This record gives sequence, C-alpha cells and structure tokens, in this order.
Amino acid sequence: MPLSEFELIDRFFAASPCAGAGTGVVLGIGDDAAILSLPPGEELLVSVDTLVAGVHFPTGLPARAIGHRALAVNLSDLAAMGARPRWFTLALTLPQADEAWLAEFAAGLGALAARAGITLVGGDTTRGPLSITVQVHGTLPAGTALRRDGASPGDEVWVSGYPGLAALGLRQLQAGGSGGTAVTAFLAPEPRLALGEALRGLASAAIDVSDGLLADAGHIARRSAVALRLEAAALPLAPALGELPREEALGFCLAGGDDYELCFTAATGQAAAIGALAARLGLTCTRIGRVEAGDGAECIGFQPPRRGYRHFGDS
Amino acid sequence: MPLSEFELIDRFFAASPCAGAGTGVVLGIGDDAAILSLPPGEELLVSVDTLVAGVHFPTGLPARAIGHRALAVNLSDLAAMGARPRWFTLALTLPQADEAWLAEFAAGLGALAARAGITLVGGDTTRGPLSITVQVHGTLPAGTALRRDGASPGDEVWVSGYPGLAALGLRQLQAGGSGGTAVTAFLAPEPRLALGEALRGLASAAIDVSDGLLADAGHIARRSAVALRLEAAALPLAPALGELPREEALGFCLAGGDDYELCFTAATGQAAAIGALAARLGLTCTRIGRVEAGDGAECIGFQPPRRGYRHFGDS
Repeated sequence: MPLSEFELIDRFFAASPCAGAGTGVVLGIGDDAAILSLPPGEELLVSVDTLVAGVHFPTGLPARAIGHRALAVNLSDLAAMGARPRWFTLALTLPQADEAWLAEFAAGLGALAARAGITLVGGDTTRGPLSITVQVHGTLPAGTALRRDGASPGDEVWVSGYPGLAALGLRQLQAGGSGGTAVTAFLAPEPRLALGEALRGLASAAIDVSDGLLADAGHIARRSAVALRLEAAALPLAPALGELPREEALGFCLAGGDDYELCFTAATGQAAAIGALAARLGLTCTRIGRVEAGDGAECIGFQPPRRGYRHFGDS
Repeated sequence: MPLSEFELIDRFFAASPCAGAGTGVVLGIGDDAAILSLPPGEELLVSVDTLVAGVHFPTGLPARAIGHRALAVNLSDLAAMGARPRWFTLALTLPQADEAWLAEFAAGLGALAARAGITLVGGDTTRGPLSITVQVHGTLPAGTALRRDGASPGDEVWVSGYPGLAALGLRQLQAGGSGGTAVTAFLAPEPRLALGEALRGLASAAIDVSDGLLADAGHIARRSAVALRLEAAALPLAPALGELPREEALGFCLAGGDDYELCFTAATGQAAAIGALAARLGLTCTRIGRVEAGDGAECIGFQPPRRGYRHFGDS
C-alpha cells in the first residue's frame, strides 16, 4: 500500500534529528500549527523560497544536493539580514513516495540544519511535480538587521568568496563533469551565516548573491537610492575562473547566480574590522567598488552580456 | 517581452492592499527577509499548506476561488489554535505569467486577507506546474493556544457548522453544478477565526476539519491519548445533505474534507458558554459526542465507508 502523506512526513521528517526540540520551540510538528517563543527584545525575520525541478536545479540532481540546496538558499537570506537561524518549515511536493530519494533528501537537509542550528517545526507533503518550498525564521536584536536600504555615498562595496564559481560548476555539470571546486560550489553552497551575524554594526547594507553580483548590487542601489560602481580590476576571480578567457571569467563573476555569497556596503573606516573578521572566519572578503550618488549598479571596465537570471525573463 | 518574476511579484502582490503596512511589520516585501515584531508576552504560531492543481482542487477552478482557498486553509489552522492572524507569505508556482489569472487570484486572496486582518510580508514567484504554498503567522498570549493534546475523559465533543457540505459541493461541481450552499461551502470556505479566538479558555482541545470529521477527531484522540466517541444521531446535517439517503449523508458528514469547521472538546460545564458564544457569532455549534478513556475515534451508530482524504493513499 502506498504511504499516506502523514506517514511520509512522520517517517522522514518528524523523526529527523533536525525536528527535535529547538530553542524557543513550545510545540513542534504534529498540531495545526507550531508554537514558537522569541527571545525578549528580538525581532522575527521571515523568508521563503521555492525550488522547482528543471527550473532552479537540473532534473536528476542528487537528492542529497537538493535537500541541502533547498535549505541553503533560504538560510542565505537570513545571513544577508544578519539574523540567527531558528526555525523552518518544509512544503514538499513529490511525484511519488520514493523512500530512497526521501532518505537522501532528508540527509542533505538535516546535515545543514544541524550545522546552522535551525529546527524543523512544520511542513506539508503533497503529490505533484517535484518542488520544494522552505520558509526560514531567524531572530536578532530589534533594530539591528542588515537591510538593502542602508548604503550611503562614500561607502565601499564588498563581496565574500568568489562569485561566479557556482555558475561555472553548473555549466561543468551540464557538460558531464562531476568534481572540482566549481561543481562543489554549485552543489553545496554554504550560506554565510557567521559572516552575516558578525556584520551587524559593521555593514550599512547587505544582500546575498543569488541572481548575479551585478543584478544584486543593483537591488541595493535601488533600495538605498544610490549608485554602486564596481571595478572589474578589483573583482575576485576563483582559480577555476582564472583559467578562462578574461571576458568569460568576468561574465561568470558578475552575472552568475547561485553562489549565495554576501555583497555588502560599509563605511571606509570599517575596512580593517572587516579584514580582521574575514581572517577570523577563514573567508575571503574583497573590496570591489564604491557607493556614489546616482542610481543603478555598473561595472567599470567591463560590460557583462546579461544581468542575472530571470525565471520568466531573459534566461 | 515576458514579465520577470520580480515584475510579477511587484505588480500583483507587493502593490496589493493586503501587502500594506500591518501591525508589527517593521519591513515588508522587498528585502531578503521581512522583519516582524511580536506583541510582548505573545507566542508565534506558524502553519504552512500547499495546494496543487488537480490534487487539492479541480483543474479549472476559478482563479478567485483558488486565491481564497489557498489562504483560507491556512487561516483555518490558526483558527484551530485560537490564534490571531498577523502575517503571511505566498510562494506561487505558475506555468505562465497570465495577468488576468493573477488579478483574479490576487482579488480572492486579498479580500479574505483584508477580512482576516492578515498582511502579506513576503513571497516567491516561480515557473512550473500550478501550485500555491501559503504560510501563515499568528500570535496569542503565551500559554493559551488550543492544542490537540488537551482533551480529557469526561469532556464533550463539539463541531461548528455542517461538516460534509463542502464535499457534497465538490461532487456537485464535478457533475457540472455551479450554485447552491454546498458549492459555496467548497469554493469559499470561511475559516472560523472569531470562534477559535473565543474558544481560548473554553475548549480543552481543537482541530480544523480538513481531512474529514472522524479522521480529524482521531488526531485529537491520538495526541490526547483518549477515545472520542461521536454519535451518529447527534451529527448536524445541512439541509442539502438531509436530501440524500441517510447513509450517504452521514458518510459526507463524517468523511468529507474541505469544510474547515472546528472540531473541539470542552468540559461539560462549558456547554452554556459555548452555546452563548455560538449565538453571538451567528454560528451553529453542536455537541456530537464525548471523550472517554481509550484510544481512537469512532462513530456510534454508523460506520463510514472511508476515513478521510489521503494524497498518497486510498483516495
């Protein structure tokens, strides 16, 4: 007899280590709603993202990578706000109840959840074409969130890691490749949670790089009503990108999505503190431009062929 | 040029009246996450449900009814906990960007959101087979939630409204019908929010009837470690059900899902208060059985042919 949706949820998720009692969980999975308790004086941060097979990841991606990715892209939004991850829900739509697939999916999801300290508190499992919606909840002291609208002329623009690596990895995967740093960057993006939390009080604005560095810098520019000018010569190119022709490498760096690095702005006087923070976290953080009066984001010294990834658009 | 996902979200949802500034919304749509502020001393209630076209509603259902339904089924979970609706997110997967469809969907969603006093604070629009995931957030004074695990032997079992009417409506719709109270019950279920909030302190346990009255009574029984014994002779049958053969009418009442009425338990001494409450709200609330030591839910005087609706099961 096929599994019922309740048995599915029970077996693979409610019993998972990531669904155990977490901080602030008054009542977890199993009632009409979860009951959660926030630390006094903290605000709640909420973000939701859907991944659709064949749209947000290639059909046939290993289930473990899908589980990791579904949570990672959402945790990245909390990182970009500087929030501490607390609780998440999982709405999973599956063509059939495939236990082996579910076990692998849950393993990928659960490993990242454990590392991030986030607890599964609710969900819904339905039949249909494969699609995963995760909603994450984080908290932080009231008034300290890193928003997109805080950049000012005179600030500097920074980025963590090596944007473009994941997009190169996706191309390598689609061409039949299976290993290397680029493929890993695509399959297992690591949300920059520790960096995000530590940037509270240092950064003036932040966003995670999901659409492409230049497009996401444009979101900060628009919300802050300023211009972000990136410099091609300052962009950090991963060794794997450095092997490509320069035009192509810069294209990946500026327009490749899926890295989930943080792009942020900060006053000039914060540069030393950001350098020390990056060293403590073992991350690369690179100054890539400056904030000026004006509008939009551009890259001086290079015009990328496209401005990020759009589901209903030009992709 | 096709609309980008950003333009879609902007046009139809961010600008919608239901996405305006709501109570406790520090920052709404437009950043990596929404920032929300809870009233001091209140807990957060979280619930998520996905509706898949062809699984949870018939393909071709009017977009306005889909928009209403997607929010209603989630608000019903807050009603069952006794929570006040505050904020929701919408993850919408669409086969194409159809403006007329979106406008109707947003109208159905928005009208119910306005009536329930809930604010849209985030979302994600993606391309794929039609599916809607809504997550709702409610609040209530800490420790006052109506849970499934509070029923005790000696309590009485109650239900609001006329369960089974929506299932009859679905059958009528599938047979080509388009009007009448049963079809309305299916197309526009009304979450029992005022009843749920007022039952805090009166009810000992509660659940919303989504899988079918007997199956949902079984969830209270399991979580409370008691038995719920319903009486066939006490079940409220809507006039439209009363026209059917008795066996069939009772089958709809006990096993029909989709009504989103509340099934709850309360101490015997609360009967007068519940009656007065129902009269004040203009709702029917009917005593349908009692809680005893034991386990499971059964209906004395009738054995329904099936025990509710299962996505991967016997439906």
